Amino acid sequence: MSGDARCIGVFDSGIGGLTVVRELRRRLPGENIVYFGDTARVPYGIKTSETVTRFARQNCEFLLRFDPKLIVVACNTASATALPELEAMLPVPVCGVVLPGAKEATLQSEGGTIAVIATEATIASDAYRRAIKQYDEHARVIQKPCPLLVPIAEEGRTCTDPIVLSVVRDYLDPIVRLDPKILVLGCTHYPLLRDAIAEVAGEGIRLVDSGEQTAKAVVERLRAGGKLSDRAEAGSLVSYVSDNPQRFRELGQRFLDHSVVDVTWVSPEQFYAQDFAQAR
Amino acid sequence: MSGDARCIGVFDSGIGGLTVVRELRRRLPGENIVYFGDTARVPYGIKTSETVTRFARQNCEFLLRFDPKLIVVACNTASATALPELEAMLPVPVCGVVLPGAKEATLQSEGGTIAVIATEATIASDAYRRAIKQYDEHARVIQKPCPLLVPIAEEGRTCTDPIVLSVVRDYLDPIVRLDPKILVLGCTHYPLLRDAIAEVAGEGIRLVDSGEQTAKAVVERLRAGGKLSDRAEAGSLVSYVSDNPQRFRELGQRFLDHSVVDVTWVSPEQFYAQDFAQAR
Repeated sequence: MSGDARCIGVFDSGIGGLTVVRELRRRLPGENIVYFGDTARVPYGIKTSETVTRFARQNCEFLLRFDPKLIVVACNTASATALPELEAMLPVPVCGVVLPGAKEATLQSEGGTIAVIATEATIASDAYRRAIKQYDEHARVIQKPCPLLVPIAEEGRTCTDPIVLSVVRDYLDPIVRLDPKILVLGCTHYPLLRDAIAEVAGEGIRLVDSGEQTAKAVVERLRAGGKLSDRAEAGSLVSYVSDNPQRFRELGQRFLDHSVVDVTWVSPEQFYAQDFAQAR
Repeated sequence: MSGDARCIGVFDSGIGGLTVVRELRRRLPGENIVYFGDTARVPYGIKTSETVTRFARQNCEFLLRFDPKLIVVACNTASATALPELEAMLPVPVCGVVLPGAKEATLQSEGGTIAVIATEATIASDAYRRAIKQYDEHARVIQKPCPLLVPIAEEGRTCTDPIVLSVVRDYLDPIVRLDPKILVLGCTHYPLLRDAIAEVAGEGIRLVDSGEQTAKAVVERLRAGGKLSDRAEAGSLVSYVSDNPQRFRELGQRFLDHSVVDVTWVSPEQFYAQDFAQAR
């Protein structure tokens, strides 16, 4: 056996990162995944980069206990604000969601305008614009924070709900008027509202899901490093949350297309033990 | 001088508690107030009672350093879930927002139905129903969680915004059909949306603001205990937040009707030092 049987670690501020897990499991059904959702401190998108970076570091320290071969930052806000620090500090490769989304958007844009919708913190970080410019320095980028879309997705409203459609229209109309070619879903919650976003955007605008692109990037990275598992049976999904495992189970099913069975609550002392120890 | 010059401590998950501060300052202009907003972990309303109780305890421990004569839990979610534990643990009187709101609603209801809107956690705790039954065991109570109203208020949308009106209508229409006499604003954020709520509720339904009633209850309690300050000049307002003092300053003005000048960021090590110490 030459494959790497270790798990893939994934974290998000809450439940949104499960859209990345869904794509990972579709492409890599044999991989074991350990997921951490920081549901006691969700959302991250309205908080400062200092605070989000601290939270992201603590989440990674927790995931390291499971000896992962790679950690996926399945949260656009944390990817946008904390990735350099995580890469510098962690002994394993780290994959964020911003760069893969930016790369695909640039590839598909054919010189047209790229619009990005995301949380306030992600937009404030300017991470998407910088990432897109890395692939095409002449790209035209417009960015729009959409603070209500995370709570709307978390509330469990469907894409045919009039409230969802009117809020999506409120955010997207000013963007659509600028006639972009691409619309990047720069938050892992947004795929849940994809149908409503597609309806408001219209047929002329292609949607790029940063989570889906990230799953592709993870496959490439593991393959290139010879680190794919050669497990024949289905891989496991084990989830930990810092609050409310019951709510995670209930909502998780909508994100994953199957039920989330194995969810464990971890106390702050457990998941950021390192910080507690350092504060002595 | 016979008055008690010590400050009043006030905390909330974030910025909503400033509506209580506004009412306190209107009634008690000579009192010093120290406010703590737990903006790194906001919102509380989607979290479990265990987690909210832990956060509330840590916030109170921070406020105790300022030697308050009374602590106001200016957060319905924390009042609904953590008040008994806080009362048992704290060496100073504690005033929550649920009981004053429930009392006023019962007084004004004249036997009519009392409707309560609040966060998911507050409604799930059933604290309002229990408190109202304490004053009138035959009272008819209907309760409705409105998860989007906090993020909508925090986003800074005004009451004439079509999104605000359609979301408020979506939550309130099923309540209005049941013809209540009273509608309790069971979240300290909701006074910001008061005009929209009043418009949708119509003239036949009286609004009771739990924050306003709490300010009245604090005055009564301090007066009864001989603990009002006899300061002649205006009292001070000093605020601490666990994240993003800049955002607090910007939004705070809308809550307070005047600018929030003195805001300091405190790190987790500072504001829950006790817990860090105990984890040794």
